[in-house]
Amino acid sequence: MFDDKVRELPTLRWAMVGGGKGSQIGYAHRCGATRDGLFRLVAGAFDIDPQRGREFGVKLGVLPERCYDNYQTMFALESKRDDGINVVSIATPNSTHYEITKCALLAGIHVVCEKPVTFTLKEAEELKAIAKDHGLILGVMYGYSGFQMVHQARSLVQNNLLGEIRVINMQFAHGFHSQEVELNDPGAKWRMNPNISGPTYVLGDIGTHAFYLGQLITGLAVKKLCCSRQSFVKSRAPLEDNAHVMMHFENGAVGMLWASAVNAGSMHQQKIRVVGEKASIEWWDERPNQLIYEEQGKPSQVLERGMGYLDSHDDAISSDRIGAGHAEGFFESWANVYARFAVVINAANANDWQTVNATWFPDVDAGIEGVRWLERCVESADNDEKWVAYRE
Amino acid sequence: MFDDKVRELPTLRWAMVGGGKGSQIGYAHRCGATRDGLFRLVAGAFDIDPQRGREFGVKLGVLPERCYDNYQTMFALESKRDDGINVVSIATPNSTHYEITKCALLAGIHVVCEKPVTFTLKEAEELKAIAKDHGLILGVMYGYSGFQMVHQARSLVQNNLLGEIRVINMQFAHGFHSQEVELNDPGAKWRMNPNISGPTYVLGDIGTHAFYLGQLITGLAVKKLCCSRQSFVKSRAPLEDNAHVMMHFENGAVGMLWASAVNAGSMHQQKIRVVGEKASIEWWDERPNQLIYEEQGKPSQVLERGMGYLDSHDDAISSDRIGAGHAEGFFESWANVYARFAVVINAANANDWQTVNATWFPDVDAGIEGVRWLERCVESADNDEKWVAYRE
Amino acid sequence: MFDDKVRELPTLRWAMVGGGKGSQIGYAHRCGATRDGLFRLVAGAFDIDPQRGREFGVKLGVLPERCYDNYQTMFALESKRDDGINVVSIATPNSTHYEITKCALLAGIHVVCEKPVTFTLKEAEELKAIAKDHGLILGVMYGYSGFQMVHQARSLVQNNLLGEIRVINMQFAHGFHSQEVELNDPGAKWRMNPNISGPTYVLGDIGTHAFYLGQLITGLAVKKLCCSRQSFVKSRAPLEDNAHVMMHFENGAVGMLWASAVNAGSMHQQKIRVVGEKASIEWWDERPNQLIYEEQGKPSQVLERGMGYLDSHDDAISSDRIGAGHAEGFFESWANVYARFAVVINAANANDWQTVNATWFPDVDAGIEGVRWLERCVESADNDEKWVAYRE
Amino acid sequence: MFDDKVRELPTLRWAMVGGGKGSQIGYAHRCGATRDGLFRLVAGAFDIDPQRGREFGVKLGVLPERCYDNYQTMFALESKRDDGINVVSIATPNSTHYEITKCALLAGIHVVCEKPVTFTLKEAEELKAIAKDHGLILGVMYGYSGFQMVHQARSLVQNNLLGEIRVINMQFAHGFHSQEVELNDPGAKWRMNPNISGPTYVLGDIGTHAFYLGQLITGLAVKKLCCSRQSFVKSRAPLEDNAHVMMHFENGAVGMLWASAVNAGSMHQQKIRVVGEKASIEWWDERPNQLIYEEQGKPSQVLERGMGYLDSHDDAISSDRIGAGHAEGFFESWANVYARFAVVINAANANDWQTVNATWFPDVDAGIEGVRWLERCVESADNDEKWVAYRE
Ligand SMILES: NC(=O)c1ccc[n+]([C@@H]2O[C@H](COP(=O)([O-])OP(=O)(O)OC[C@H]3O[C@@H](n4cnc5c(N)ncnc54)[C@H](O)[C@@H]3O)[C@@H](O)[C@H]2O)c1
Ligand SMILES: NC(=O)c1ccc[n+]([C@@H]2O[C@H](COP(=O)([O-])OP(=O)(O)OC[C@H]3O[C@@H](n4cnc5c(N)ncnc54)[C@H](O)[C@@H]3O)[C@@H](O)[C@H]2O)c1
Ligand SMILES: NC(=O)c1ccc[n+]([C@@H]2O[C@H](COP(=O)([O-])OP(=O)(O)OC[C@H]3O[C@@H](n4cnc5c(N)ncnc54)[C@H](O)[C@@H]3O)[C@@H](O)[C@H]2O)c1
Ligand SMILES: NC(=O)c1ccc[n+]([C@@H]2O[C@H](COP(=O)([O-])OP(=O)(O)OC[C@H]3O[C@@H](n4cnc5c(N)ncnc54)[C@H](O)[C@@H]3O)[C@@H](O)[C@H]2O)c1
Repeated sequence: MFDDKVRELPTLRWAMVGGGKGSQIGYAHRCGATRDGLFRLVAGAFDIDPQRGREFGVKLGVLPERCYDNYQTMFALESKRDDGINVVSIATPNSTHYEITKCALLAGIHVVCEKPVTFTLKEAEELKAIAKDHGLILGVMYGYSGFQMVHQARSLVQNNLLGEIRVINMQFAHGFHSQEVELNDPGAKWRMNPNISGPTYVLGDIGTHAFYLGQLITGLAVKKLCCSRQSFVKSRAPLEDNAHVMMHFENGAVGMLWASAVNAGSMHQQKIRVVGEKASIEWWDERPNQLIYEEQGKPSQVLERGMGYLDSHDDAISSDRIGAGHAEGFFESWANVYARFAVVINAANANDWQTVNATWFPDVDAGIEGVRWLERCVESADNDEKWVAYRE
Repeated sequence: MFDDKVRELPTLRWAMVGGGKGSQIGYAHRCGATRDGLFRLVAGAFDIDPQRGREFGVKLGVLPERCYDNYQTMFALESKRDDGINVVSIATPNSTHYEITKCALLAGIHVVCEKPVTFTLKEAEELKAIAKDHGLILGVMYGYSGFQMVHQARSLVQNNLLGEIRVINMQFAHGFHSQEVELNDPGAKWRMNPNISGPTYVLGDIGTHAFYLGQLITGLAVKKLCCSRQSFVKSRAPLEDNAHVMMHFENGAVGMLWASAVNAGSMHQQKIRVVGEKASIEWWDERPNQLIYEEQGKPSQVLERGMGYLDSHDDAISSDRIGAGHAEGFFESWANVYARFAVVINAANANDWQTVNATWFPDVDAGIEGVRWLERCVESADNDEKWVAYRE
Repeated sequence: MFDDKVRELPTLRWAMVGGGKGSQIGYAHRCGATRDGLFRLVAGAFDIDPQRGREFGVKLGVLPERCYDNYQTMFALESKRDDGINVVSIATPNSTHYEITKCALLAGIHVVCEKPVTFTLKEAEELKAIAKDHGLILGVMYGYSGFQMVHQARSLVQNNLLGEIRVINMQFAHGFHSQEVELNDPGAKWRMNPNISGPTYVLGDIGTHAFYLGQLITGLAVKKLCCSRQSFVKSRAPLEDNAHVMMHFENGAVGMLWASAVNAGSMHQQKIRVVGEKASIEWWDERPNQLIYEEQGKPSQVLERGMGYLDSHDDAISSDRIGAGHAEGFFESWANVYARFAVVINAANANDWQTVNATWFPDVDAGIEGVRWLERCVESADNDEKWVAYRE
Repeated sequence: MFDDKVRELPTLRWAMVGGGKGSQIGYAHRCGATRDGLFRLVAGAFDIDPQRGREFGVKLGVLPERCYDNYQTMFALESKRDDGINVVSIATPNSTHYEITKCALLAGIHVVCEKPVTFTLKEAEELKAIAKDHGLILGVMYGYSGFQMVHQARSLVQNNLLGEIRVINMQFAHGFHSQEVELNDPGAKWRMNPNISGPTYVLGDIGTHAFYLGQLITGLAVKKLCCSRQSFVKSRAPLEDNAHVMMHFENGAVGMLWASAVNAGSMHQQKIRVVGEKASIEWWDERPNQLIYEEQGKPSQVLERGMGYLDSHDDAISSDRIGAGHAEGFFESWANVYARFAVVINAANANDWQTVNATWFPDVDAGIEGVRWLERCVESADNDEKWVAYRE
């Protein structure tokens, strides 16, 4: 069990920017990071409103003097303390990711940044370079990537049980924004604003999750793509609330991705199906403990988390917190990702780059590919939905 | 119950071309047509091999002298008999549909033709004109269109329970041809041969079914499309064994269709999901007695065939043969379609065109749209997968 | 494919008693019997109302003179005709089964009787003896027993893939009679009347189906049982609309059966789960093309009708009418059972008792066990729900 | 959201007895208790092996001097400290629960005890009395009772949406002990030993969970029951690895419970179905975010955690940690239960018994009923499976 090994690691001193009171994803970060005692929350600039942020931080057990008015102050002061933070998680709206991440890295602090990591590819590459120069980890919070069955899927592909990959179909399509709910929902509102959200809405907000899972499982590079996006709620233009993307991959495989916030009645429907010449696999985030494995000509199989037949040599697969049959969920996935961050941050602190390189975690390259994919989708969608090459 | 009314209709004298011993779909035609006593099989040219066809016909109870060597002779002789056939079903490989249908119509015989009805749009339009001139019915065997829950879906759309339609996603993607099985399977072999199959394989073989269901349910016209097709088993080129089609519809809706014969491990996965501004519906041909209806913000509902809450004023919905709960299947769908054919053929015989026009059945226009869609898909796929307008 | 072989058989001249206009199950008999050309409907006493029965029969294509006023006349006259009926199906309310069956057998006519075959064990044994004396087949219409995946389940048990059987849980529990619907539904009304229905309602009406499937799949004899039955709609007393039965089997296995007509909201929920020391199987009549096979410590498998991995040496399993993936249903199951009746009746006619004995079909012994089980259930339920030995 | 309110509560000083290194359920307690900052682990007697327990505790961040050799010492010393523990969770094998709980209560410490709370009813009643005398909370860790959809089920029953309850079917039936795995699995081994496990194995180990959920949802008292239990792996006798229990409830409802550890291939299959005169509900612990709600004559509905249509006035239902659609799981359920314990313990500390009484939590009465039910099951099973009255 992965956790047993990582539990020996030193606890990291951890801060958050954003994720304040009432925020959507702050709680998930705190649950994920602290779950195994690997991160201890000791500082924060939790809120755009400093006062509210401080009150919130204190309730979380952070010392008042380490609840900062803004991230700049926090990074400046913390980086001078002996017991200053090692790592910060950034859970603010998209437009701020680049600046905050850069500021943290320049202060010598490891970063876990929310997705999408920046608005442009250029910015993302720049952050990567800074992180590298300073010997720092820059992780990106693809929170679904900690599910064990996603890694089992990846392992089946890597062990060639599917044969050559032919088709990758991905989707993340909920219905919660079928109507103009942003009128009364600030958490939705900024997502429809290109200044804050960036050049996309559903593609960057949720499509990028499904895309990353497809990438993580198959490892296949996109060759070209064609994207069509719509603003079914008109006031959302130019940002889309629905998009279809057709893709060709370098190895000759093809695929589709459907991202939507207007898929009325659907909860999430994040599903990844990978079809190989011998078998297919399918994973669904609402039934995350199961993985369908279908060998052509054989009965379809339902693989279950925690079972002995899984590829248990892979830490990511065997990170069970409770026996098979019990429903693990979203928060365990996040904790698994954070455990990986702890491994690589501790390794980086020890200058052990071999471990960093040998350890899977959603790294800055994953973030860069996410941004590249969004850029290409927009380029296609906004140019008569023509096909565009994925790399220049 | 629909059946009660139609059972009063005179029995039609019916013949088949093709559908002989060992054929894939001949049995379905015979089951569907004879199920309710509306068609009686009295003649046939069942096989490319006349001797085998005759033996087979006799076993089916057809008089030896009405088991013909070929369709030309059959149409010529039967059209002269007082008790000659009223209608013929054509269940031969695709390349022959046009000729045989034309020959039958010119002999004054109603036709139920397999899909795709012709290779080209021009031919399909020609057949339509001939049928019209002769006052004959030309039906196309979209066999899945008889499922009651498909009609319930259509009714929900028509009654505006979904609101404006936004997204139509369709798929029919099995895995039976993941390998080059045609080497030992004649029924698969001709499908990979453009001379017999026509300009497409999976698009015309199965994609067209899902497309028709989408059309039937929503009634929305395609505006433009972009198609990507592949021959994952190389020897199948130029015919595709996998295709993705992106579509825009006239009302602003968008959609995707995935057709595949290499979706390893999948049985059928023919699924239609229609998303409206208020609700979505989803139907799956492997669970045909259920229809998912999901109103945004309400619990997802599972509608069941045979229940009192369905739109029972619609004949097509209330054609139950057995109470709710019992699994009806593929053959009941075919029988429902054939019952509709019986209605319109009898009406045409009585020169009652009002009934013909008021009755839903998969007609030649459905066949024409199927061929048009295939032409456009090929045009797109074979021109760098560019977008093409649906109508010239 | 089973059908190919049986299609060579001579067509049997067939009649019905009951199953008239508006009856619940008459259509299923006609569909099942005539589906493969093995039975031709040539006579009938279709209705308690002779006039209505005659009109109905004529519409079905039966000659007016062979639409009889009552079964007595029919058996008397038909048994004298050269082209008289070979076999009759009895689809009347339960109270009449014994008399009608006896009358038919004494007239030298094979019988397919609806379940439950009689009210008492004694009567059932008597019918068996008469059939035997006259060299006649007496089949019982357990219509779910023709589903191919039920036979695959049986084959898995017989081939010891489950190991020793430990638990057999069965249920058939719908909700259609949650309220006192019999006030306005004659087809429900007689079922609540002990004079017509017999000593039980749901146990005999539906529980017996699930019980038979359990018996068919496992072949295990009941040793003792304990039954609790209720009349949740009070006016139904003494007949039950809900019952639970606990059973011990001769080999040490145990089991439960739940039969209900007040399982609000449920369609059928007829499910059979058989647990062995190595693996379990589960079948559900609303998803009849699938069989779950779960080997302990391995991924759960979904077996699909029509696939090459099934035990195709067994005729009952390989009776596909259409390729895998297409939904077969209730009517195919009935046709499969009737095809078996055709095999054994033709064999009996040819005095080939070896074939009769070697062929599986739901025979009078199945009917007898059904009645015995009902007798024991009532004995237990009506004696303080005590345990009773299954055989005296 | 429940959590927001409870997060204001003072953090409780918490200890564990048992739940040491490699234990099955210790991690779940720690996750559940600490999840919301309501409990802080400050002491423990984690292991039967004091040295191993101390090492383990220190790794968890407990001061070495508060890692005690045994619970007696812990309670004695901690109860004297100003900053001594407020509450202890007991996660040791069953045989020790009574002694440890009693010892803790007598030392004035609140207790969360694992189930079954004692071996005998008498002991359980005694513990209740002691708790009451000392003004202490005695909670029982029915960990599945924190799932929000279980409380939605309860609310639907209480709001009479089902009408009078008629049938309650419960099961918890996994297959992990189909073979004699206890030979190599100490965590399984003690469960088969009556001296440690108590008078039952599967009934007390898992059946009691399903029984409690049934009780929690319906609130119906058992009137009489009949139990049959088996030791399919012979060496387990007299303890059962499979059991069926038939029950009558005071209001006239009936029910079944199936508990098994030999249900080969099954993961958990903990399911509760409650049937009322108007509607049924069904919940499954492997899909815990969904609740099926089936009104007779209407489409079946799937209710989802987190949605606005749920009974959000009920704290237990609205304790979402993340938006609807995301999979919450087992650990959230435990955290929800522990949050309730925090509420009542804090209330008890403040002498606010009104809050204690108004707050749902799995209390000692739930534990007592669990033990009573086990006693009655054994009484029945070991006396020829006769019916026994639930209360004397
Ligand atoms: N990985 C996932 O599954 C997932 C899910 C949801 C959101 N996200 C991402 O997380 C980020 C936050 O999304 P959210 O939905 O939680 O947003 P939110 O609007 O609910 O919360 C944003 C929080 O950031 C704070 N904030 C804003 N600007 C700040 C600043 N300059 N300094 C300090 N705090 C600041 C706000 O006060 C608020 O507390 C986004 O980038 C989003 O894409 C990821
Ligand atoms: N609607 C559906 O669901 C469905 C399913 C399968 C096939 N089809 C269509 O049905 C048609 C037949 O397909 P199939 O799979 O049954 O093919 P098949 O190869 O299995 O059978 C074709 C039959 O036609 C006979 N035949 C060929 N040429 C003939 C001729 N000139 N005259 C008389 N008989 C001739 C053959 O002898 C054979 O019996 C195709 O157009 C196919 O697209 C439709
Ligand atoms: N195998 C199954 O799945 C299944 C399903 C439903 C019914 N059944 C059984 O079938 C039998 C009939 O049930 P039903 O629901 O169709 O009943 P029903 O009341 O709907 O129909 C009974 C029919 O029998 C006719 N009839 C009655 N007495 C007659 C007589 N003496 N002579 C001629 N005709 C007579 C009636 O006129 C009517 O047409 C019952 O025994 C029932 O248990 C079996
Ligand atoms: N609520 C649930 O879902 C659930 C699940 C599993 C177990 N349980 C219950 O939890 C309890 C523990 O079960 P488990 O599977 O974790 O057992 P386990 O055998 O895996 O672990 C027992 C732990 O208790 C320790 N221990 C034993 N005696 C002790 C003593 N006298 N003092 C201190 N520590 C002692 C052991 O060293 C070990 O760490 C049982 O009562 C069981 O019924 C409940």
